[in-house]
Amino acid sequence: MQLPEIYDLVGSELEETRSLLRQLLCSEVPAIAQMFSQINICGGKLLRPALVFLSGKICGGICRKHIAIAAVLEMVHAATLVHDDVLDEAWQRRYHRTINSLHGNEAAVLMGDLLFSQAFYLCSSLDCKITSQRIASTANTVCEGELMQLCHRGSYDLSEAQYLEIVSRKTASLMAVCCYLGARAAEAQEEICQALESFGHNLGIAFQIMDDITDLTGDEKVTGKTLGTDIVKEKFTLPCIHYLGHCGPEKTLEFQELLSNPSNSTNNILFDRLTQTDSIDYAYKQACSYSQVAQESLSVLHQTDLREGLIRLAQSVVSFSRQGIA
Amino acid sequence: MQLPEIYDLVGSELEETRSLLRQLLCSEVPAIAQMFSQINICGGKLLRPALVFLSGKICGGICRKHIAIAAVLEMVHAATLVHDDVLDEAWQRRYHRTINSLHGNEAAVLMGDLLFSQAFYLCSSLDCKITSQRIASTANTVCEGELMQLCHRGSYDLSEAQYLEIVSRKTASLMAVCCYLGARAAEAQEEICQALESFGHNLGIAFQIMDDITDLTGDEKVTGKTLGTDIVKEKFTLPCIHYLGHCGPEKTLEFQELLSNPSNSTNNILFDRLTQTDSIDYAYKQACSYSQVAQESLSVLHQTDLREGLIRLAQSVVSFSRQGIA
Repeated sequence: MQLPEIYDLVGSELEETRSLLRQLLCSEVPAIAQMFSQINICGGKLLRPALVFLSGKICGGICRKHIAIAAVLEMVHAATLVHDDVLDEAWQRRYHRTINSLHGNEAAVLMGDLLFSQAFYLCSSLDCKITSQRIASTANTVCEGELMQLCHRGSYDLSEAQYLEIVSRKTASLMAVCCYLGARAAEAQEEICQALESFGHNLGIAFQIMDDITDLTGDEKVTGKTLGTDIVKEKFTLPCIHYLGHCGPEKTLEFQELLSNPSNSTNNILFDRLTQTDSIDYAYKQACSYSQVAQESLSVLHQTDLREGLIRLAQSVVSFSRQGIA
Repeated sequence: MQLPEIYDLVGSELEETRSLLRQLLCSEVPAIAQMFSQINICGGKLLRPALVFLSGKICGGICRKHIAIAAVLEMVHAATLVHDDVLDEAWQRRYHRTINSLHGNEAAVLMGDLLFSQAFYLCSSLDCKITSQRIASTANTVCEGELMQLCHRGSYDLSEAQYLEIVSRKTASLMAVCCYLGARAAEAQEEICQALESFGHNLGIAFQIMDDITDLTGDEKVTGKTLGTDIVKEKFTLPCIHYLGHCGPEKTLEFQELLSNPSNSTNNILFDRLTQTDSIDYAYKQACSYSQVAQESLSVLHQTDLREGLIRLAQSVVSFSRQGIA
């Protein structure tokens, strides 16, 4: 099963989500309506809604509640992306210019807030305390993860455990809650909800490690988003953490000097160093290992096309041709 | 009745709100916990919670729900202030350094998001769809107001009607919902809820006009916050709109030149010009007129100490010694 086929398993639900998002993300103020269209939320592949629907369908079926949950979670995700692009001074996202690059940081901060409050509004309409609280506490966890990452910028002694804690919060928590709530809204037993939550969590970690590798080694034309921002912002991710843990004091000093005086050749030298210590390979193997744990979480489920779809999704996250999935 | 006496009418409820806010706005991550304490949410006068409680008490009584509603609305307000300070590059708020000035814009954007998501979490725990939706849609209205203001920066032809539309959204909507939900949580009739909503709305407009006058004419040592940012950011408020509508083409040109080449004497020249056309006086009279409408909204209520408290609150908003109220 290839990625388009996996998405096809929940194609009509994704279309309903797009339609709901288009309906919600509009404004009678023309300038705001224009910025909503430039955020281009429906232009993404809607990985998080897909997780909600695949988890729901695997547990019995999709109802109206699933569509709303999926839209809320995608809006929370979009809000964090809009603010992330401000923090990263990113120029491109989903093959389009970012809001901050088009309209400035101030407009991007406010548009992110508007997305948050729209998510909050739709979430209220669910009229389900447990679902709302889970979504709100996850939004909180995501923000805390982003803040922890910010506080650790420039920390040459960031440990792998600290990195994984940040990744768990800022990325994995949202994918985990997509799967958990998808299953729960289909009235699955708690044990099954938690198995899917574990799938989402481990998928999220694998996804973020791959995203971080791509930021160091990828091609902007292929990914459709600004890359290389982690190094510029001294945000050290798994390959660099591994390198700094293995290169010795002399090379650490060289690394620090390289980053404090960046030039056109910085990226090439860096790539060369990371390759010498097999640091990119190490990070890739870690991502594969989380993808494997994600797949194993699904062993409690019957073998169906839908389970196969989730397994293939976890495999595709660690494939280097996966730039299209999120 | 003086301001401290008005606040004393709901003193124990405000204390409970402070306690709840302290409990919610903490983190196991030391750097985040420190930033929460620097936001100093409990150091404000809690005008919005006071409106919730006064409106609730006037309609019969305060319950647990009021405390949560008040805390949610104060957190939404605090989130917008933290982001506002980023947009305004403000240095001081509530007599303390702003988060952006202490930790940079990135941390301030994320701390604002964290406040939003904490508000969202507490709101979910209310388990009341109508209340949650009203709060979420108000948060939305506030963000839209801020965005409209941003889109109109540098617009020399901003009309008084457009200014009032912005003020209604960004400030008055939140005060209106405080009063409405305070009354509603006390099970008041819809007519009474709407009368209090109208009080909050008009109070909010008066409040914002006075805030805008203070930004032009106030003393930072007295107000405890950065002033003069409106002019620097070409955010034209009522006194300037009135001036530009009455000064003629020659002085409009002088005004534009003054702002494009600011110097130490800019503020004095500006103040002089605004005084020549009685523009500050005009804005002040408009504020008084909204305060009057706010007071008249209360005529449906019995004459009690609490009603007197709200009337005095509306009067104090247009008093030039009011810097302590919010």
